[in-house]
Amino acid sequence: MRFDIITVLPGLLESPFAHSILQRAQKKGLCEIVVHNLRDYADNKHKSVDDYPYGGGSGMVMQVAPFAACIEKLQAERHYDEIIFMTPDGETLNQSIANHLSTKGNMIILCGHYKGIDQRIRDIYVTRELSIGDYVLSGGELPAAVLVDAVVRLVPGVLSDETSALSDSFQGGLLDAPVYTRPADWRGHKVPDVLLSGNEAAINQWRDEQAIARTKDRRPDLLDE
Amino acid sequence: MRFDIITVLPGLLESPFAHSILQRAQKKGLCEIVVHNLRDYADNKHKSVDDYPYGGGSGMVMQVAPFAACIEKLQAERHYDEIIFMTPDGETLNQSIANHLSTKGNMIILCGHYKGIDQRIRDIYVTRELSIGDYVLSGGELPAAVLVDAVVRLVPGVLSDETSALSDSFQGGLLDAPVYTRPADWRGHKVPDVLLSGNEAAINQWRDEQAIARTKDRRPDLLDE
Repeated sequence: MRFDIITVLPGLLESPFAHSILQRAQKKGLCEIVVHNLRDYADNKHKSVDDYPYGGGSGMVMQVAPFAACIEKLQAERHYDEIIFMTPDGETLNQSIANHLSTKGNMIILCGHYKGIDQRIRDIYVTRELSIGDYVLSGGELPAAVLVDAVVRLVPGVLSDETSALSDSFQGGLLDAPVYTRPADWRGHKVPDVLLSGNEAAINQWRDEQAIARTKDRRPDLLDE
Repeated sequence: MRFDIITVLPGLLESPFAHSILQRAQKKGLCEIVVHNLRDYADNKHKSVDDYPYGGGSGMVMQVAPFAACIEKLQAERHYDEIIFMTPDGETLNQSIANHLSTKGNMIILCGHYKGIDQRIRDIYVTRELSIGDYVLSGGELPAAVLVDAVVRLVPGVLSDETSALSDSFQGGLLDAPVYTRPADWRGHKVPDVLLSGNEAAINQWRDEQAIARTKDRRPDLLDE
């Protein structure tokens, strides 16, 4: 699995890919993440990649040519399964989309900035538009990092304990039950007795009940699906 | 506005806060972002902050004491309006929550990792639980960065062009209309004539129609609200 991320702020993505699970996945050779500076594909000496919007209005718009040049260079080197544009008006990312993308090979991710990107990039190149949620951010870089993290951790071998991804919230359609660790009594706040009982059947039943209760309380929409 | 972020991976958050709008907001003195290493608050020489879950099961659970020590140290220094835990079973972040939080003063953000955090931290300290979407990530660090970005850009003075935040997707309940910039013709792909017409009324009407059409097509749920 390979991600090529195209951005005007490559530096912003340095630390998220250099730690934790994403770092380990790259070291194990399970995924490759390459960040490209869009300005390297600008066709002017000022390395400008944006311009004023046609029809007026606030904010700058990212131009077609630099994205096209970078995408076409990458496509000449290898096949890509998806060219994804991170945008608040895209399809909302969920666990099922993350599961689906974790079976893909190479993907390009375009990060927008400013007011947006020229619609022709979306019409000509983009195969999938994704939003990480109904809120507006400064750019597509953090959404790209979120997408890569959500997908890569599902690739077999990335998580050390494979059952961990399977028992995550959402994978079973329910939120997780509460978890506790030592000490059993912290300033008078105690761990529920059942978890200390050693009775596996009772523990499983409690966890199921808690997961259902928490889902009913917080996310009844998940139970309707 | 001040954010104190508590994490086991402070390095992961270095670059997102050192670029673009979040960097400028800090330089202008409009917000302060302080990242705390949870391991500095461990009560053992191995700097361990997690332990096995009571009742068994996969994954480690983050302990109460280190979070408690860091939170109580911060609370002794200043008042906090919110102690937010980023978790997939929290309330789903949206633009309205971001708008609301942009009026607050000081906030602590807790990043979970591994299987989760001891439920007692949530019961005793946390005032608000937020999810950035229905997908599972390696930890709460990227969600914390997303939350800070979504909130800080709404603080007056942070964006250079204040109308830009107001005309964002979601703020008016509609998605944005398509945007275009030069050239007007790129390899035969043309900008819609109306945007080149100079007729402001016609341009505004086209943009409204496009915004409504795109919202109907992609996010009819936004129109029901």
